[in-house]
Amino acid sequence: MAEFQLIEILKRRCAWPRADVRVGIGDDAAVVEVPAGHELVICTDTLVAGVHFPLETGAADLGWKSLAVNLSDLAAMGAAPAWATLAITLPSADPDFVARFAEGFAELAAQHELALIGGDTTSGPLTITLTVHGFVPAGRAMRRGGARIGDVVYVTGTLGDAAGGLRCLQHVGASSLESGSIDHADRDFLVARLHRPSPRIAAGIALRALASACIDVSDGLLADLGHIAAASAVGFEIGEDCLPGSSALFDQFDTGVCRELQMGGGDDYELVFTIAEANVAAMLASMAETGCRVSRIGRAIAGAGVHVLDRNGQRKHVAAKGWEHFT
Amino acid sequence: MAEFQLIEILKRRCAWPRADVRVGIGDDAAVVEVPAGHELVICTDTLVAGVHFPLETGAADLGWKSLAVNLSDLAAMGAAPAWATLAITLPSADPDFVARFAEGFAELAAQHELALIGGDTTSGPLTITLTVHGFVPAGRAMRRGGARIGDVVYVTGTLGDAAGGLRCLQHVGASSLESGSIDHADRDFLVARLHRPSPRIAAGIALRALASACIDVSDGLLADLGHIAAASAVGFEIGEDCLPGSSALFDQFDTGVCRELQMGGGDDYELVFTIAEANVAAMLASMAETGCRVSRIGRAIAGAGVHVLDRNGQRKHVAAKGWEHFT
Repeated sequence: MAEFQLIEILKRRCAWPRADVRVGIGDDAAVVEVPAGHELVICTDTLVAGVHFPLETGAADLGWKSLAVNLSDLAAMGAAPAWATLAITLPSADPDFVARFAEGFAELAAQHELALIGGDTTSGPLTITLTVHGFVPAGRAMRRGGARIGDVVYVTGTLGDAAGGLRCLQHVGASSLESGSIDHADRDFLVARLHRPSPRIAAGIALRALASACIDVSDGLLADLGHIAAASAVGFEIGEDCLPGSSALFDQFDTGVCRELQMGGGDDYELVFTIAEANVAAMLASMAETGCRVSRIGRAIAGAGVHVLDRNGQRKHVAAKGWEHFT
Repeated sequence: MAEFQLIEILKRRCAWPRADVRVGIGDDAAVVEVPAGHELVICTDTLVAGVHFPLETGAADLGWKSLAVNLSDLAAMGAAPAWATLAITLPSADPDFVARFAEGFAELAAQHELALIGGDTTSGPLTITLTVHGFVPAGRAMRRGGARIGDVVYVTGTLGDAAGGLRCLQHVGASSLESGSIDHADRDFLVARLHRPSPRIAAGIALRALASACIDVSDGLLADLGHIAAASAVGFEIGEDCLPGSSALFDQFDTGVCRELQMGGGDDYELVFTIAEANVAAMLASMAETGCRVSRIGRAIAGAGVHVLDRNGQRKHVAAKGWEHFT
């Protein structure tokens, strides 16, 4: 199986036409057009086998997830997706693997009308790097640095599910797992949240006119909110009991474990954002329209860092840390 | 050494300001602006340790080369470079390696005013993926598919040097190497052509108004010209004696080996292009202005494939093949 045959598989499945793609896969480079009055938003994320996903992860799930983690970065900026380039390094030229990868990629890409426009297939240890491109109206990208003291903090969806799903796969941490009494629907839900996260594109686009700062939860809530705190020079107080959780998570894990996963677990790809109190009503209406659940979890304060409050409003020490490589 | 410290090194060395960068390294994504009336040209190339470069390659050379191979794709489209995102996977968080990588990258990037605007640093086997962005005036990108029967074929610079440099490093194929009598200046020249290729950006920009088709020589002359042949539905006849070679190459290798390296050796990153006879004089004047040597090597004919002619004008069989993964 030669390289060009693998590219042909990817092209057939993932490179549907878009009016703004002048030259797609098959030349030295792609040529595309950014609409007038818009800025280009670009992000890159790499998934390494055994580091960012378990070695036994299915190829279709990998195709989905490698796109999802990048789309989530676009969502955090409020950008509308357009194009992606794929650099995939494979231990062997396996056309079945590539076809299944393309299937998962295409399933999510189709939802967002994103087209694959180029890339590189190479031989080596399994590694996937996607560079994803989207648009925002000029000057309207959401940033990490815009939070003001007094803003409230919201998060989309539920937290901790992906980390719960990973524990299910690893068979640790849940008494129901150890006793073999786990509910299979719960398990499937949590594992799907790990393997097939849904980037909050529609919510991000709706929020860019209303939120003051935004980031996606990829490393864990406290770590990612900490990035907003640092960039905005504010602190945050977060109510432990305010954190949204799925019934699947709470059914399968003790409350203490759930809290730990909600605050420190990565891979949720929800959006956490700050917003002036005056914009909250409009935001809630807008989120209801997009069908996106949001929860108020805290407030920006003078100071630094992210502080967790217990149900009595007292600060408590939390050991949970976000995901970091090389440490 | 945490991930953010590695990113800080890259940012400090490679992320100088450009007026069209609204948000650079440090948010969820970069935000940039494409100039009015221009299209965006995007390419991605991956270098895997032990596959695309010898394991002992210096980090600064890697930084230079990973950018050069991508800029060469922009050159082949006639694009002016603007921005890059870097996905670098490292076996360990080695700040010295990253600093030297950044130094080599920055040295070439500065020549072309290209800014690093984002990326991802991950842990795993050494792999470098760059996605590079540039501009062309709308509708003016050079393509592979524009060659017409009767067009002449030119190539920039000299061919075979990088493959000769690789043989020097591997100590094979040159009698002077085996006898230890190699000229060190020749060796250094050839190895520099392998490690520090100069992408033909100025030539590409000058050619886009004149050439009918263009590609860069990354896999080997015959293989890459074969891509133009296939995309343009023409054949090519190439004169073996017309192929430009450096004196270093011819001093160190037998003529037969030189021919093989010139036709089949990859990694030269010269441009091979087709042009109507009527445009040749203007092209030669333009290339003289940019200081870029060009050589006429053949002609587009009715038919298919790339045929090599000996000095008597007879077609000869050539076994040399271009670089291909997975075969």
